[in-house]
Formats: sequence, C-alpha cells, structure tokens
Amino acid sequence: MTVRGVLLDLDGTVYHHDNPLPGAAEAIDRLRERGLSLLFFSNNPLYGGEEYVDRLQSLGVDARPGEACSSAVVTQEYVDDNHAGDDVFVIGSASIRDRIARGAANVVAEPRDADVLLASWTDEFHYDDMVDALRALDTGTIYLGTDPDPTFPGPDGHPVPGTGAVLRAITGVTEREPDRVLGKPSEVAIEAALDRLGRDPEEILVVGDRIGTDILLGERAGMRTALVMTGVTDDATLSASDVKPDHVLDSLADVETLLE
Amino acid sequence: MTVRGVLLDLDGTVYHHDNPLPGAAEAIDRLRERGLSLLFFSNNPLYGGEEYVDRLQSLGVDARPGEACSSAVVTQEYVDDNHAGDDVFVIGSASIRDRIARGAANVVAEPRDADVLLASWTDEFHYDDMVDALRALDTGTIYLGTDPDPTFPGPDGHPVPGTGAVLRAITGVTEREPDRVLGKPSEVAIEAALDRLGRDPEEILVVGDRIGTDILLGERAGMRTALVMTGVTDDATLSASDVKPDHVLDSLADVETLLE
Repeated sequence: MTVRGVLLDLDGTVYHHDNPLPGAAEAIDRLRERGLSLLFFSNNPLYGGEEYVDRLQSLGVDARPGEACSSAVVTQEYVDDNHAGDDVFVIGSASIRDRIARGAANVVAEPRDADVLLASWTDEFHYDDMVDALRALDTGTIYLGTDPDPTFPGPDGHPVPGTGAVLRAITGVTEREPDRVLGKPSEVAIEAALDRLGRDPEEILVVGDRIGTDILLGERAGMRTALVMTGVTDDATLSASDVKPDHVLDSLADVETLLE
Repeated sequence: MTVRGVLLDLDGTVYHHDNPLPGAAEAIDRLRERGLSLLFFSNNPLYGGEEYVDRLQSLGVDARPGEACSSAVVTQEYVDDNHAGDDVFVIGSASIRDRIARGAANVVAEPRDADVLLASWTDEFHYDDMVDALRALDTGTIYLGTDPDPTFPGPDGHPVPGTGAVLRAITGVTEREPDRVLGKPSEVAIEAALDRLGRDPEEILVVGDRIGTDILLGERAGMRTALVMTGVTDDATLSASDVKPDHVLDSLADVETLLE
C-alpha cells in the first residue's frame, strides 16, 4: 500500500501534557515533506480543533488550520446533525456544555426535560450527576458519550478517570449502556477523519498509543495501524489485546520507517 | 414447616421513610404474640442496630434492644474479624467511616496506604473518590462494599443512587469487581441473621420488598421467603426475575396468613 494520509493521536503520541515527545515534531515535518494529508485527532473532549492547532504550534509542531479534530468536535457535529432542536442535558465540563449550546440543540437545566443525555469528562462529577442521570434516562431518552477512554495519564503520570469512567458510573446506576459513544473508535469518528483527510481508508496510516481507540478505529475502518509505546500501552497490555496493530513503533519519531 | 423466626426488612416493608406502612406495627405485635424470634435487618449502611430499634419504636413498632441489624453492623463486624490492624481507606459517609474507626482496623487518609478499600453510600460521592479508588486498588488491596443496592427510593419517592451505584462507578474506573459485598444477600449477612435469630434456616421466614437482597438471601440460606409489594418491586420486576419468592403479599399486614 501507499500511504497518502496519516491520522495522528495527540496525548501519548505527539506530546505528554505540555512536553512534546522526542523526535515527534521532526517526524511530522518529514511526513509533510512527503505531501501526506495529516489529521491530528484527540479523544480529549475539553478542546476543539483550532485549540489543538494552537496547542501543537506552541509546542513547536507544524500543525495547520483545519488539521485537528477531537471527540468534542465530532460530538458537536453529531448532535447538530441528529438532534437539532432537541433538548440536551449535559453531564460534563463547562467546555462541552458551552460547545453544544452554541450549536443547533438546546441545552436544558432540568434532566426530566431531556431528549438526549450527553455525558462527558468532568473532574467535578458528583453524586448529584448520578441522580440527574437517573432522572434524564427514565423514558425514551437517547444516551450519548463523547469518548470511551476509561482513564488518562494525570499530571503526575498516574492514571485518572476519563469520560469512560463517568459513562460507567452512569450505566452503573441507570443500568443503561450509552446508545453511542462518539470519539475514537466510533463510526462517527471514522467518517469525520475520512472527510478531513480526503483519502480512502486503505491509503491512511493511523498512529496512536491506545489500542482500544486508535488501533481499533484503524482496524474497523480498514486503515493501516501503528501503535507507539510512548503512551498508555505497555507490552503486557499489547500481548493481552485481541486487537493487534499492523506495526509497533518505539515512538512517532520512527514513523518514516513504515513509508516506502 | 413451622416458622419460629422472622427476618424483616425495614424500608419498603415496615415503613417508608418516616411513615410506618399500614398494619405493619400490628402485624409485628401478632408475630410477637406467637413467640417468634424477630430480627429487623436494613441494608442501609448509615445506621447501626440500636439506632434502628430507636427509630422503629418512635414509629410505634414494638422493636426491642438487640433485634435490629444493618449492613453497617455486619460490615463493621466483618472488618473487625478479618482486618484487625489493617489500614482501611473508606469511600462513603462519615457515619460508616466513624464506625470502622471505632473498631479494630485503622482508617487511613491516604489511599495508597490501604490494605482494604471499603466503599459505601454517600451523597457526596465525587470524581476525587474515583481517583482515590484508582490509587487504593493499584496492587493487592482488598475491595469491600457495605451493600449492593443500586438505588433506593428518595424523599420524593423517585429512586436515587445507592451503594451499588457507588460500587459500579468504582468498578467502572478501576475494572475491579468488589471482593465482597457485605449486606444482604451475602453469606456474612446470613450468618449474622442466623446468630441473632437463634433458629435454623428452615424455621425462618424472610419478609422484604427487594428480590435481589431480601428474597435472594432467603433462597440462598434455605429460608422461606415472602415478597411484599409495598416497596421497590412491581409486578413486571417480579415476573422478569429468576429469583422467585415462596409467597407474595400485598403488605406485611398479611404476614399472619402464612403462619399455621
């Protein structure tokens, strides 16, 4: 196959928090010199695409407008496309709530009014949110999540709960699984990536550190996949996984070895 | 069979919040006139046995010292018997934390120090508790819960999250199921009930409103079981359940119809 587009995860692949990973910026420069389409795609639901472009540039990575996407972006697009005019109750950060409110749906303050419950990451998740989730999901309400990541590395490197933990807490009390979880590896995320990259799936290489999101997305979509060992996945996790990447790289710095 | 002891659930069986259920106090008087051993057993982990005796008396129910038990009581006994001197990190109410601290184990403030994580109901459950659970359960720690009830009826009659919801939230982020959940229908609760009633299982009638705790406890222990329809269980839930009570009563007021 000839690679014509690269779908790049961010945290754990290009940087860790505020620190670019060694060789990542240079590797991206070389991908760009080959004329490849690039898309940076984070499952972090706190920020939008242009915020990620700014962030990457501030870290010395040559990212350009329109080249970044996130679970927040695909969630907003999905809600606008499918729930325009619907009443949405949000459990999550002010950031995702504001983003949805700027779109075509109505964000409501009363869970019993909800047509849709949207749940996302917030470090203010509280018992009262579980009460609200019970109220919102009592009848016919659609239940959406921004992304499935159960944990992510906290500032001290130890894992902290992610959106997936919030979703499971809600499922635990309501006994309802989400109807859709919208970040990687969802179909919605695959469509968003293909639209932005403008390439066929078999021309795309996915590079990421998380088997259940980055690599699974690539496998589902028929893309080539490369796992980098600079993030959450260790050898034991890789060995135990049913999902197998096509390639395993020490880091993004080695990505060029996969290109002819 | 001849019934010689009756194990009675409280909320939904004898009372709803501060309201005794119609005929409940009189039914208990008649059980007492027959010379039966009585034990009131709540899965609510906020209160101890003597608090329940006081509460029942204040509602006009003839409950006597030593006749009440709760998930908090069996949890405290279990921790004292099995974890004397161990470091216990508690996620739950101040009430359960204080109860454990008064016993033979050490309640610790740092989750990484924990030999045991004990999780229970608290309406202050927060994201930071999920972070603490991740820290506490990283290696070799025993994970206990006070009781399994996912919801209970709130003050307005609508369900609110119970200890079971807290346990599932913790399991969702840590991917660890509790090693033991100590209220009804656990083996620990069965032993506690048999000790207090002083009767053989086949001489005991369990009366309660919850299939998964009251009726399941009776089924596991070889007791006779009666479901009352004054609490959380409706006809649809009963029909859908694999656990079947021996008897279904409109309310505790009818319990005498089961006795010869």
